[in-house]
Amino acid sequence: MAYQALPETTTQPLHIAVIGTGWIGAFHARTVAQYLPDAVLHVVADPAPGRAAELAAELGCTSYTEDIADVFADDTVDAVVIGAPSAFHAGLIAQAAAAGKHIFCEKPAAHALADLDQALQAVEDAGVLLQIGFNRRFAKDFALVSEQIASGAIGTPQLMRSLTRDPQVEGGLPNGDKVRSHVIFTETLIHDFDTLNWLNSEAEVTEVYTMSDALVAPEHKKTGLLDTAVVTLRYSNGAIAVAEANFSASYGYDVRGEFFGSSGMVQAGNPVQLAASSFDAQGAHAPTERLNIELFAQAYRDQLSIFTRKIRGVREGTADAALAVPTGADARAALRVALAALESSETGLPVKLQSATRLAVNA
Amino acid sequence: MAYQALPETTTQPLHIAVIGTGWIGAFHARTVAQYLPDAVLHVVADPAPGRAAELAAELGCTSYTEDIADVFADDTVDAVVIGAPSAFHAGLIAQAAAAGKHIFCEKPAAHALADLDQALQAVEDAGVLLQIGFNRRFAKDFALVSEQIASGAIGTPQLMRSLTRDPQVEGGLPNGDKVRSHVIFTETLIHDFDTLNWLNSEAEVTEVYTMSDALVAPEHKKTGLLDTAVVTLRYSNGAIAVAEANFSASYGYDVRGEFFGSSGMVQAGNPVQLAASSFDAQGAHAPTERLNIELFAQAYRDQLSIFTRKIRGVREGTADAALAVPTGADARAALRVALAALESSETGLPVKLQSATRLAVNA
Amino acid sequence: MAYQALPETTTQPLHIAVIGTGWIGAFHARTVAQYLPDAVLHVVADPAPGRAAELAAELGCTSYTEDIADVFADDTVDAVVIGAPSAFHAGLIAQAAAAGKHIFCEKPAAHALADLDQALQAVEDAGVLLQIGFNRRFAKDFALVSEQIASGAIGTPQLMRSLTRDPQVEGGLPNGDKVRSHVIFTETLIHDFDTLNWLNSEAEVTEVYTMSDALVAPEHKKTGLLDTAVVTLRYSNGAIAVAEANFSASYGYDVRGEFFGSSGMVQAGNPVQLAASSFDAQGAHAPTERLNIELFAQAYRDQLSIFTRKIRGVREGTADAALAVPTGADARAALRVALAALESSETGLPVKLQSATRLAVNA
Amino acid sequence: MAYQALPETTTQPLHIAVIGTGWIGAFHARTVAQYLPDAVLHVVADPAPGRAAELAAELGCTSYTEDIADVFADDTVDAVVIGAPSAFHAGLIAQAAAAGKHIFCEKPAAHALADLDQALQAVEDAGVLLQIGFNRRFAKDFALVSEQIASGAIGTPQLMRSLTRDPQVEGGLPNGDKVRSHVIFTETLIHDFDTLNWLNSEAEVTEVYTMSDALVAPEHKKTGLLDTAVVTLRYSNGAIAVAEANFSASYGYDVRGEFFGSSGMVQAGNPVQLAASSFDAQGAHAPTERLNIELFAQAYRDQLSIFTRKIRGVREGTADAALAVPTGADARAALRVALAALESSETGLPVKLQSATRLAVNA
Repeated sequence: MAYQALPETTTQPLHIAVIGTGWIGAFHARTVAQYLPDAVLHVVADPAPGRAAELAAELGCTSYTEDIADVFADDTVDAVVIGAPSAFHAGLIAQAAAAGKHIFCEKPAAHALADLDQALQAVEDAGVLLQIGFNRRFAKDFALVSEQIASGAIGTPQLMRSLTRDPQVEGGLPNGDKVRSHVIFTETLIHDFDTLNWLNSEAEVTEVYTMSDALVAPEHKKTGLLDTAVVTLRYSNGAIAVAEANFSASYGYDVRGEFFGSSGMVQAGNPVQLAASSFDAQGAHAPTERLNIELFAQAYRDQLSIFTRKIRGVREGTADAALAVPTGADARAALRVALAALESSETGLPVKLQSATRLAVNA
Repeated sequence: MAYQALPETTTQPLHIAVIGTGWIGAFHARTVAQYLPDAVLHVVADPAPGRAAELAAELGCTSYTEDIADVFADDTVDAVVIGAPSAFHAGLIAQAAAAGKHIFCEKPAAHALADLDQALQAVEDAGVLLQIGFNRRFAKDFALVSEQIASGAIGTPQLMRSLTRDPQVEGGLPNGDKVRSHVIFTETLIHDFDTLNWLNSEAEVTEVYTMSDALVAPEHKKTGLLDTAVVTLRYSNGAIAVAEANFSASYGYDVRGEFFGSSGMVQAGNPVQLAASSFDAQGAHAPTERLNIELFAQAYRDQLSIFTRKIRGVREGTADAALAVPTGADARAALRVALAALESSETGLPVKLQSATRLAVNA
Repeated sequence: MAYQALPETTTQPLHIAVIGTGWIGAFHARTVAQYLPDAVLHVVADPAPGRAAELAAELGCTSYTEDIADVFADDTVDAVVIGAPSAFHAGLIAQAAAAGKHIFCEKPAAHALADLDQALQAVEDAGVLLQIGFNRRFAKDFALVSEQIASGAIGTPQLMRSLTRDPQVEGGLPNGDKVRSHVIFTETLIHDFDTLNWLNSEAEVTEVYTMSDALVAPEHKKTGLLDTAVVTLRYSNGAIAVAEANFSASYGYDVRGEFFGSSGMVQAGNPVQLAASSFDAQGAHAPTERLNIELFAQAYRDQLSIFTRKIRGVREGTADAALAVPTGADARAALRVALAALESSETGLPVKLQSATRLAVNA
Repeated sequence: MAYQALPETTTQPLHIAVIGTGWIGAFHARTVAQYLPDAVLHVVADPAPGRAAELAAELGCTSYTEDIADVFADDTVDAVVIGAPSAFHAGLIAQAAAAGKHIFCEKPAAHALADLDQALQAVEDAGVLLQIGFNRRFAKDFALVSEQIASGAIGTPQLMRSLTRDPQVEGGLPNGDKVRSHVIFTETLIHDFDTLNWLNSEAEVTEVYTMSDALVAPEHKKTGLLDTAVVTLRYSNGAIAVAEANFSASYGYDVRGEFFGSSGMVQAGNPVQLAASSFDAQGAHAPTERLNIELFAQAYRDQLSIFTRKIRGVREGTADAALAVPTGADARAALRVALAALESSETGLPVKLQSATRLAVNA
């Protein structure tokens, strides 16, 4: 054998702990394990008996734990990816920050502003990075549209639209009786609120009005389900926006945006994703995307890749430290809109953000 | 010469009078004169000095008048096409009906419900036909979407969208200082309200909320201009709809609709109309439509062609008597929504149609 | 009655005779009768017993004849529209020209160059207008593409494509046993050859190679049917083009063009014509055009409208005299390609136009 | 620390050697190093001084060599990825097979049939896997179209089209004076020939005719450059296909296919890849793809992922052993067409594959 040898690279991979093994936690764990060349999946953590072990085994990760505290106590862990149920997000952010870990947290960062503010204070105190899982910002089409708007393609924003429709599943809406009324705002439309805020970056929402209902599964309306919502938003620069969500699109996952202003319009998203079409006696046909992890496969991966690059950038003082990511402040802005929209759905009246009851604790 | 002769057809062409010579009146007059094989442009009427003569001459019509009453006194006239300013529509409908003329009237049929109801009563008393110029119903794409919805393509309607964006003109919004606040609702969005009513035909609007502003020409906001509006509508079958308008789209005339329900979605309208595209170092490009009479050329003609066919159908007792057209009742339904939307823009609150102040005279 | 009267217009409408009452002749007759404001359908002529009378009656035309000579003898006739079987085209052109009539003739103008040259000589001697029914030039998308190419959008042409696929009809290819081998070249691809010549206007075809077969109805191959053909053409400026035809597209009428050069590409035509789409559990769907007279409705009308405007332009010395239309020279250029392509299909070898046997009589 | 430990996985990753460090070799090496969870980049080999070391260092691979023989002598190597210049492909395949390595080889597998047959014999003798880099088969749109055709979507194939246009680069065609006439057939169109063969899988090419030229860089025509080619192919089942290539598309990388038959048409590929569009006063715009490794990023990765899965499938006797990949036989079929197309470009005549001179050595 005459190979010549190079020294092993001195750059240590980032050691990442994934907290939560539900489908999104598992998806992130897989991304860390298989698609991030400069990171390793160090440990999988989930208090649910057996779940962490199962996912770790599947991904070839040799450590797991059912006690999340282990993760925070482990000095080897550089960063955590929080994919636990959203009720725990704010608390986990605070704990991870206190332990000095960089944090990637799925949306929403919190359900209440007070919780979020406590978490953000911990992040600030610790000086760690916090990136929120607003993955749409990393989808190529939305990213391009963002650049176009930034370079003046639409002039002054006047009308905006962002929508999310989840794919229909056989057997009807899963757990419709357990879905509380806030979910469509804090879990689903939070993406749209962030998209609108991000693409109208020089303004903030001043007023919202919500029209919502349980139309997909009206039988669960009595237990609080809202599965369809249209939220109208007024921004401080005059732009009027519509955010729209529905939990059951027969044709699959549908996320789109339209941004119109004084000198033009840009659009992102298209339920028809493949450059394949067929023609027969019934006309023309094209396939549609079915799952969010298919539609946003690239975005899901790129957001974590950016996360690790940014951590390194900060550590090594390179330009990557300045990579743009959705921050805690972004999470807060979107949450404020979501809570105001929820309040409007409850009162049936428009809600001004500066006087919203649900935002009052932070006034 | 050895031609063989056929008898002249015994079917007399319909004699149509066009009232009003503004751009839409003139456009309709041209359609009657040039594109309706079974009708003749009998007379052009407009009180504005010289206008009727000019248009008649241009179209080879040998009669004109500056006294509209002449038209109603003329027994030869079978039908009138009303293209006068909309403030006169209701009165002209009533007069034409009293004179026994069939009536095609541009939208809106009236500005106030009381006026409209008086006109509709006259139509009913006279037993004449009244067709409203909701031309979008005759556009091939919207007509197809209507058929698809009727045959169950979307299941139960849940989310609907209809939008109108007028083309930008050089020099800014024309007469922005003279445009009153009701215009965007009664003249522009009235089309969208009719489209939504028509495509959700088994339900009616119960509540509306308007967010509107002068964003195109903010300098005219003080004199009442509204040039941008988003109206959210709740229908009696649960469907939530958004109607959206703006007076200045840089890329031309833009009319679209999206109708989503329990089993699918249909879309109509596309700002890119031509099957031509070009590719260069900057990417792909396609032309957009610029004018409503281009985008809806076919619809504008077909609605008048249907109007004359229906008149003949009624006279001759054929199946054409049952041709579907937008009626006075449709005009009334759309006007109610427009007035409620206007009221919401004034109060800043959602408006229930059953308790709207502006609809109260008809309660 | 107080109408004021305008003098009848002194401009006489053009008197047009339509020769031939097959589907295309009848279609043109209807266009003349109903869509040309400045022309009248003066007489319908067809030697087939009863056919002319029937069509004339349907269109409200009071004269008809079964002797074509009557048309040429009638001084009132300004122009003829020839829609007879193509075998008679060249002879009718020659006769019409001798009678001093302006001529619109359906494609192909002739089946053989000698016949065509005789006809073109008659046209030249008489100084009448001759316009060929290459309607694709008047389709808005192809017209736009032509302008784009003329203004340099593609730079130097390198690769071109034009295709024609006829819609499938139930029961299989009609009269497949009577379709001779030349038909796909002289009747169908002649459109594509003209399109390519027109859009590569500074060059001419120097060489062609044909690969063809009876694939739609192989049972008729023995009687000469060719229903599928791909013709490769080399132009004097180096551009290589492909013309492609097939007689049976399940999804309807399909005409497209793609023109690629040193600085870009333009495309015209799209089997999906309507701005309507639907989405369901199977994906996305859109309707396709079925008939040439639907796909090219506007083009079919506009070519005759241009024809009458040009006649008036010539008579009155206006700018309309210079309106661009497909000429006898264009017909000749396309026919030369068609005959060379036919020859290539017979010999199985590439054919240089300067040495083609079928073009030899005119060498 | 209370983590629980799982045993390290007993499945060894596949050890892969990459041979060749040009842009495609480097690209494959990066894919192996970063995107294949079950494989490791074991060694980088390239005789060019310094190249292997540089790439290995960049990818964190600790071994490299400038003597390819080292790779074949290394028992640890499970498989090789050949990305060397194509003149060496056949020889490297033979050597790798003799050494018992599984082989992924970039297209074309050889420039001459005799060389290829020798290599394929070695592969057969050794019983190793050979997969050819016809990556288009793994692009989602082409893969879908393949499934659709297999399930009868187009019925009997009649007309097919496959095209490749390389992106224009600033400064004109690189190395135009060094590009030999076979390149457009053996390096570029070989992809299209494989695509057509694959999608018309029950037939084989019987005859080809080529029209080609140097239109992008005519100044290099004298040294043999062909940069534009249209090849017409006749298949044994009657289908007529067109393969088209050009070396310089201003709008970027363009790969498309269209497959038409007795009951329908399917299309794959679209130069507009992103679901983003913009509208301004000039109309509608969309970005186009620029590079093959962008357009086919997913396909490039998936083909290697399938390669490693198939190797494991064979070793472990699982269903993955049957994964469909482009084989040596496919490479041979495509090369036969390429050589016949080259011969046709030289003779200017159609070439029947059974009597082609360039294929004679294997008759």
